[in-house]
Amino acid sequence: MAYDYDLFVIGGGSGGVRAARRTAALGKRVGIAEESRFGGTCVIRGCVPKKLYVYASTFSEMYEDAGSYGWSADQPSFDWHRLVAAKEAEITRLEGLYKSGLVGNGVETFDTRAELRGPHQVWLKSEDRIVSAERIVIAVGGTPNRHESLDGHEHGIISDEAFDLKQLPKSIVIAGAGYIGIEFAGIFNGLGVETTIVYRGQEILSTFDRHLRDQLHKEYLERGIRIITKAVFSKIELEDDGRRRIELSTGEVLRSDVVMFALGRQPLTEGLGLESAGVETDSRGYIKVDDYSKTTCDSIWALGDVTDRVQLTPVAIHEAMCFVASEYQERPTKPDYDTIPTAVFSHPEIGTVGLRELEAKDRYDKLDVYLASFRPMKYTLTQRQTRMIMKIIVDAASQRVVGVHILGPDAGEMAQVLAIPVKMGCTKADFDATMALHPSAAEELVTMYDPSYRIENGEIVDG
Amino acid sequence: MAYDYDLFVIGGGSGGVRAARRTAALGKRVGIAEESRFGGTCVIRGCVPKKLYVYASTFSEMYEDAGSYGWSADQPSFDWHRLVAAKEAEITRLEGLYKSGLVGNGVETFDTRAELRGPHQVWLKSEDRIVSAERIVIAVGGTPNRHESLDGHEHGIISDEAFDLKQLPKSIVIAGAGYIGIEFAGIFNGLGVETTIVYRGQEILSTFDRHLRDQLHKEYLERGIRIITKAVFSKIELEDDGRRRIELSTGEVLRSDVVMFALGRQPLTEGLGLESAGVETDSRGYIKVDDYSKTTCDSIWALGDVTDRVQLTPVAIHEAMCFVASEYQERPTKPDYDTIPTAVFSHPEIGTVGLRELEAKDRYDKLDVYLASFRPMKYTLTQRQTRMIMKIIVDAASQRVVGVHILGPDAGEMAQVLAIPVKMGCTKADFDATMALHPSAAEELVTMYDPSYRIENGEIVDG
Repeated sequence: MAYDYDLFVIGGGSGGVRAARRTAALGKRVGIAEESRFGGTCVIRGCVPKKLYVYASTFSEMYEDAGSYGWSADQPSFDWHRLVAAKEAEITRLEGLYKSGLVGNGVETFDTRAELRGPHQVWLKSEDRIVSAERIVIAVGGTPNRHESLDGHEHGIISDEAFDLKQLPKSIVIAGAGYIGIEFAGIFNGLGVETTIVYRGQEILSTFDRHLRDQLHKEYLERGIRIITKAVFSKIELEDDGRRRIELSTGEVLRSDVVMFALGRQPLTEGLGLESAGVETDSRGYIKVDDYSKTTCDSIWALGDVTDRVQLTPVAIHEAMCFVASEYQERPTKPDYDTIPTAVFSHPEIGTVGLRELEAKDRYDKLDVYLASFRPMKYTLTQRQTRMIMKIIVDAASQRVVGVHILGPDAGEMAQVLAIPVKMGCTKADFDATMALHPSAAEELVTMYDPSYRIENGEIVDG
Repeated sequence: MAYDYDLFVIGGGSGGVRAARRTAALGKRVGIAEESRFGGTCVIRGCVPKKLYVYASTFSEMYEDAGSYGWSADQPSFDWHRLVAAKEAEITRLEGLYKSGLVGNGVETFDTRAELRGPHQVWLKSEDRIVSAERIVIAVGGTPNRHESLDGHEHGIISDEAFDLKQLPKSIVIAGAGYIGIEFAGIFNGLGVETTIVYRGQEILSTFDRHLRDQLHKEYLERGIRIITKAVFSKIELEDDGRRRIELSTGEVLRSDVVMFALGRQPLTEGLGLESAGVETDSRGYIKVDDYSKTTCDSIWALGDVTDRVQLTPVAIHEAMCFVASEYQERPTKPDYDTIPTAVFSHPEIGTVGLRELEAKDRYDKLDVYLASFRPMKYTLTQRQTRMIMKIIVDAASQRVVGVHILGPDAGEMAQVLAIPVKMGCTKADFDATMALHPSAAEELVTMYDPSYRIENGEIVDG
């Protein structure tokens, strides 16, 4: 049977674009459909605009710190519309690069919603026609939850919309303290917005190491961010002056210009026609896949955030590369989820790789923990009391470094590089054997000679 | 024979202080003499004030870039005296920490010049008395050359003095394009000083990899720094208006407020009484040492910049630790000079570890070279054309990564961490196996799939 395409990809984000481009580069006939903008979450409404806004939000700190280094400037002002426009120009440029990268490799692109109509059939909405493909990749990604069970949820926004607010609010209340809530809180606070975080749990950033969480909490308070833990929204109402009135489960009432939900994300599988091909989803709507990203339909694969694996851009790209290797290059390759470094672009930044203490102590009988807390050199001339945290978790028996956690300037860059030796299975002795580079912050990592404390059978014992 | 001290250290810089403190912590009787200020070159007139001034000098760039992110502020002004005072307060604080660290460990400190008077004898100038010690460490360091053979050299300054200029000059001419000259050029340029570099060689930073040198040269020109290569000073004269008139070997005449020599450093061995103990020096005055830092006198060791090894703070500290382990802890330990990471705090910064291409191609028959050049994300919204360079040099036969060279923001932090896997003997496959962290600059290091070019028997062949 002749198909219209060797491969058809639904979704033009990081995973879908990579799968399409690489497959086409091998001489295959490839089509891809995207209903919004090529580039997907990462480029259009995630990583890229987020980091640009993080850069923007750090200038207020820089204006303050400059004074301690001899500089003077009048009170700076900030124009939200200029930032939004600059962001828009940049993501449009990147969108163009994504599209031209596809076209340049011979991929046929469709600016339309596409849905499954069978194991080899894809319906293109804009043309109302069905195309056929030998293989299909679903890479439609996910979207933030809108908390639809909440009374008044329609008065809140999600992160997608936060980038393009018509004006910079005077105040914002963010529900959720995962990395997205924490990053946006840092952005809005840095841009001068009165910022409040409301979080149901005990402590922000529940999936990160405790020392980073505690210290970042302190830093955020220091910067004037209000953090309300152990509370959830009960109701949102729109007031006459256009502000939002938020009732919390604690009985407290907050008022703010904008309410943002940062309560996790969900896969965009609704109405995708999965049932037409027997593509199964789990209870939360994520597409089920095997170790090679194949769905329950033999001719269909799913990549990236539409599956319940690790939801990060490089992981989606990696899954795409593994798919291409497995299906078109005769090199069956399972995606490798071991030792994935990650960053939170908070103020200051978090960079981490490997296990946090809580995980490590479940896995190892004895741990040596090395912990350093110091003022980064660039703050020593300023009044800023920001502290940098570096934490190395070592399996005492093997001396393997099983986790490294950093809070402070450039933590993300450090975590990226640290992932190389940690994934290699390096030991603490490999850190110790490394010459320091002075003056740097990272030299602290290679000059921690004695454990700060030890953990035996889950309990902290004196170092 | 009973000595006054188990160990006497001449010189209170990084190496001397570490040797004294660690030895005293082992219960030994230790004395240390410093004729200037405890902390030495690194703390008082090197690494620390240099990096503080680098921070100060980057604010002008940030003021410019802020506009592209929506910020506005009036033309900033800079007050040199406030920077000098802030620096002075900070290094005084650190000096105090160094001294209290010594005293806290029971080291007896002397604020005086000290000279050798025999294999076990040290003369303390301030008290005009001789003390005895079983072992003596010489760690007096070095000082910048003043180019005394040059006609008019007395009208120039060295880096020590650049930190404390009575006022910020309008213009400066720097002789030399090693890392010190390059760093100070970046500092003064960033602070608004008209800056010229004069260098006898073909290209700046002769000991660094060619791609970094070329690109940094371009960046410096872009920032308005004038670079004159293949030229040396012929003469300096003081003009009536207080400015310096500099004649170059090319015939060109420059005029500037300040002339600074950054022409290398020399050991401070003159008048140290070395001959009284048979401590020999080489032709350039450096103290000769064996693999364990022992001099030609059996009871005397030399550490740090007074020896002709690798002149970096962490190396001096490492030599001190090895000395203590060897002499007082029954663990004979040679300093390890392999794979030392280093940074140049230029604008942008350089971070490097391992061999540069020139060295690697002498040592290996076949090299794979991976080279990336890109605009760092934080500049994408700005007009700044600064490019980041990342270069990985791989021995093609073993696939070992033998050198990594970075130019761009945070290059120093990256080099520090990269030193861990490179020293471990990592391969390119270890880089490839590492998941990217997005968006970061360092992710480029783990996503360079194909060599940019290959080198065979010293010749570049197509990649």
